[in-house]
Amino acid sequence: MAVKQSSSTVAKPDGLHVLQALSDPVRLEIVRQLAANGQCMCGQLVIPVAKSTGSHHLKTLSKAGITAEREEGTSKFLRLRHAELEERFPGLLESVLRA
Amino acid sequence: MAVKQSSSTVAKPDGLHVLQALSDPVRLEIVRQLAANGQCMCGQLVIPVAKSTGSHHLKTLSKAGITAEREEGTSKFLRLRHAELEERFPGLLESVLRA
Repeated sequence: MAVKQSSSTVAKPDGLHVLQALSDPVRLEIVRQLAANGQCMCGQLVIPVAKSTGSHHLKTLSKAGITAEREEGTSKFLRLRHAELEERFPGLLESVLRA
Repeated sequence: MAVKQSSSTVAKPDGLHVLQALSDPVRLEIVRQLAANGQCMCGQLVIPVAKSTGSHHLKTLSKAGITAEREEGTSKFLRLRHAELEERFPGLLESVLRA
C-alpha cells in the first residue's frame, strides 16, 4: 500500500484525463519507469525528449492524478499514485503497464 | 464469452492505440453504449457529433481493435471485442467504463 496522501491537496484522478494522460508513448514510458523503480528523483528518469517537453509530460501526469510530487530539500521526488488509481480504476494501471 | 473471431482478419489490440482510442469523450460514449446494449446496429448508436465525425470515431475504435463490425444483408452490426481486450488488458475495459 502506498502512503496515504492528503486528499485536500490533490484532485481525484478523473477517468478521461487519466486515459488522455496515459495515451502518449513518452508518458507511458515515464509511468513504466516509476512503476519499476518506485519513487524517483525527477532527474533519474530517462525521458527521450527535450527537457521542456519532458517537464510538460510530467505536469500532464501530475494534473491527471497519476503521479504525485514531493519535495525534500532541493530534491523533487516523483511516484505513481498507485493506491488512488487502483481505488478508482481497478486494474487500469496494471493493464496499461503490460500495454 | 463473445463469439471467437477469425484472428487472421483482425489485428490484436495494441496497448497504446487502445488507450489513444479510448481517450476521447465521444469514443468513450460509444464504448459505453456498446457495453450497455451489447451488439448494436451502427444507426442505433446515439453519437453527439456530425455523421462523418461519428464514422471517423467508429473507424478509430475498430482500427484499435476495440470494436468489431459484422455485416448482415444491408445492416452493419457493431460490438465490443470484450474477450480479446480482456485477454490482453484484463480490467481495462471495466475500469474505463467506470471512468
